Amino acid sequence: MPISETWLLPDGVADVLPEQAQVIENLRRDALDFLASRGYQLVYTPFIEYIESLSSLSESNHDLDLATFKVIDQLSGRLLGVRADMTPQVARIDAHVHPVEGVARYCYAGTVLHTKPQGFNTTRAPLQLGAELFGSDSIDADVEMVDVMLGLIKKAGLVDGIHLDLGHVGLFRSLVKRAGLNKNTEHELSDLYQRKALPELAEFTQDLNFGADFYALGRYASDLDALQLHLSAEILADAAFKHALDELKTTQSAIQARWPNLLIGVDVVELRSYHYHTGLMYAVYAPNRAASLAQGGRYDGIGEHFGRARPATGFSCDLYALSAGQFNAISVVVAPKGTNADLQQAIASVRAQGLSVIQLLGNDDLNSIPNATHQLVDVAGEWQVKPI
Amino acid sequence: MPISETWLLPDGVADVLPEQAQVIENLRRDALDFLASRGYQLVYTPFIEYIESLSSLSESNHDLDLATFKVIDQLSGRLLGVRADMTPQVARIDAHVHPVEGVARYCYAGTVLHTKPQGFNTTRAPLQLGAELFGSDSIDADVEMVDVMLGLIKKAGLVDGIHLDLGHVGLFRSLVKRAGLNKNTEHELSDLYQRKALPELAEFTQDLNFGADFYALGRYASDLDALQLHLSAEILADAAFKHALDELKTTQSAIQARWPNLLIGVDVVELRSYHYHTGLMYAVYAPNRAASLAQGGRYDGIGEHFGRARPATGFSCDLYALSAGQFNAISVVVAPKGTNADLQQAIASVRAQGLSVIQLLGNDDLNSIPNATHQLVDVAGEWQVKPI
Repeated sequence: MPISETWLLPDGVADVLPEQAQVIENLRRDALDFLASRGYQLVYTPFIEYIESLSSLSESNHDLDLATFKVIDQLSGRLLGVRADMTPQVARIDAHVHPVEGVARYCYAGTVLHTKPQGFNTTRAPLQLGAELFGSDSIDADVEMVDVMLGLIKKAGLVDGIHLDLGHVGLFRSLVKRAGLNKNTEHELSDLYQRKALPELAEFTQDLNFGADFYALGRYASDLDALQLHLSAEILADAAFKHALDELKTTQSAIQARWPNLLIGVDVVELRSYHYHTGLMYAVYAPNRAASLAQGGRYDGIGEHFGRARPATGFSCDLYALSAGQFNAISVVVAPKGTNADLQQAIASVRAQGLSVIQLLGNDDLNSIPNATHQLVDVAGEWQVKPI
Repeated sequence: MPISETWLLPDGVADVLPEQAQVIENLRRDALDFLASRGYQLVYTPFIEYIESLSSLSESNHDLDLATFKVIDQLSGRLLGVRADMTPQVARIDAHVHPVEGVARYCYAGTVLHTKPQGFNTTRAPLQLGAELFGSDSIDADVEMVDVMLGLIKKAGLVDGIHLDLGHVGLFRSLVKRAGLNKNTEHELSDLYQRKALPELAEFTQDLNFGADFYALGRYASDLDALQLHLSAEILADAAFKHALDELKTTQSAIQARWPNLLIGVDVVELRSYHYHTGLMYAVYAPNRAASLAQGGRYDGIGEHFGRARPATGFSCDLYALSAGQFNAISVVVAPKGTNADLQQAIASVRAQGLSVIQLLGNDDLNSIPNATHQLVDVAGEWQVKPI
């Protein structure tokens, strides 16, 4: 590699320079403080783990396994994975390391790595921030989680014009069970829903057991009233289906009551991470952005992999996405050389006000500090900060 | 891997649970704010880079190369390294990405990974925090760096009883040059110094060119006055040797003036990272701890690897080491269920005071929140926080 290229970074990987780093740092702090105020306790999870520990989700989520960088542990000779998602790590902590009886709330923030970008023009190293709630199967927990997610988006200054999408895997799943579909048919249906391919769906469901219900689920996916009008009495009376529908409605009305101006949409066949989630799913979208700002859902039973299955719901986001395009103007005060007490006191007092103060070195002058915005000058015996 | 072991972590890797995570998080913030007040601007560096970019130091530092986890980049087919040290990354930013003319100051904080623990019972995933100053070859820059390092240790509450060690590779290096030693002899001498093996050193230097000076360097390594008395007039008149000695003395007296109660020691044959450093070296030790709390030194020319050689000096530390053994008692206020406005207002106001407030979910009661320390109770129509 010639010197001229040693500074090149791999695709999907970037430096964050001071003007933006300070914005992200502040957002990280505000977000963690907000989550702490809501009772979510901070944990730091390891950057590497045995691959088996990281795979609690990837057993049912091949994508996560593919996204995980693997290295050999020179100490044990075993395979390690670099974390691609922190949720399974927090689930491990809840299940085993910090096994609280009752309800536990955790939050986290840290870089995760993906072997490939997970979308167009996306980073391979998101700064994942999230919150998880373990030990409650009540829909209240999901409502709280959605409310906290929205509160965080508001903290980031992005609440205007956002759109909340609610889904629930329980509708499709209970219908599949009642219809007695095999795995292949289930996957094909799921694929048709994802592609919003209504004509194909109509054809595919024509001869299917509960076919009209499967079609209605896709056709009226975002209108619960219309959906109910078009579903069969049998499925509407199904306990699991009814429970899922009730949870979706409860969440929608509870969140609308707390966020009266929020646009809330429903999509009962939004089945991303279908194998991973077990109940309510939620995502927040901003205008003019394809990817969601934050997303999450219920994933009961995840701790089973670690010997303690627990109800769980949580969300995560990428702090880079939440802060996209924001930069911070940084003030830098330059002070002259000197060790005399009044100058040192003046410097200390300006620093105590939260400003950056640089004292000149060696034979340097003001031109040596190209990012200087102010200087500390002696005005009739008093040190004052003046713009340059 | 049986379920009973999925929660096991690799050696040298750990979860950080809430009681300690909050301490480290606060320390991280205080440290970065302190560095910002001194004019050091925050950068975030990538977790992975092409191995060639990370090797600006490892060309002369085989240990760093051995410490670096390597993975194949699926996008480019090239070898990536997981950062084992952030200093080369910041040097790359200074040299190319953010090429300021004049003096540039950067700080950073983040996890680095090591393939093996670098000492007894040490982590493989330190939370490295550091500061680098580029573009000044003045000893003032080194003095500032040492002062900033000490200020940071003070912020962490560890300043009592600490010990500053100063060294300078220029003494040994200029003596080697004047004596015209070959690389092998230089390495053998360096090894003898590191092992503090005075009898062997006496024997080894007996027939060496400038042998008495090499012996004196080891024998009076920590006493500059005695050292000068035992060195030959020729080496004392050597410009490079004299410059190094002057820099060491200047730093010692400038730092002692700023930190009057600080224990300062000198060791002119402390040659750790000898190939990496080019001038003054510094490390801070705490009582009862074998490893240094923070360490650094001058490493001029590092940017050459990226096409722009610059004078540079900087230090780093592991935030886990700086916070070792500290835990944080966390207050958690539990509020009853309910969406009525006065309860919601009370919750918001307690949260605004910086406290964690959890509202009960579903059919939960106080026993569902085992980490609860307080509760919000209605006392004659007024919501009050009471200890449990």
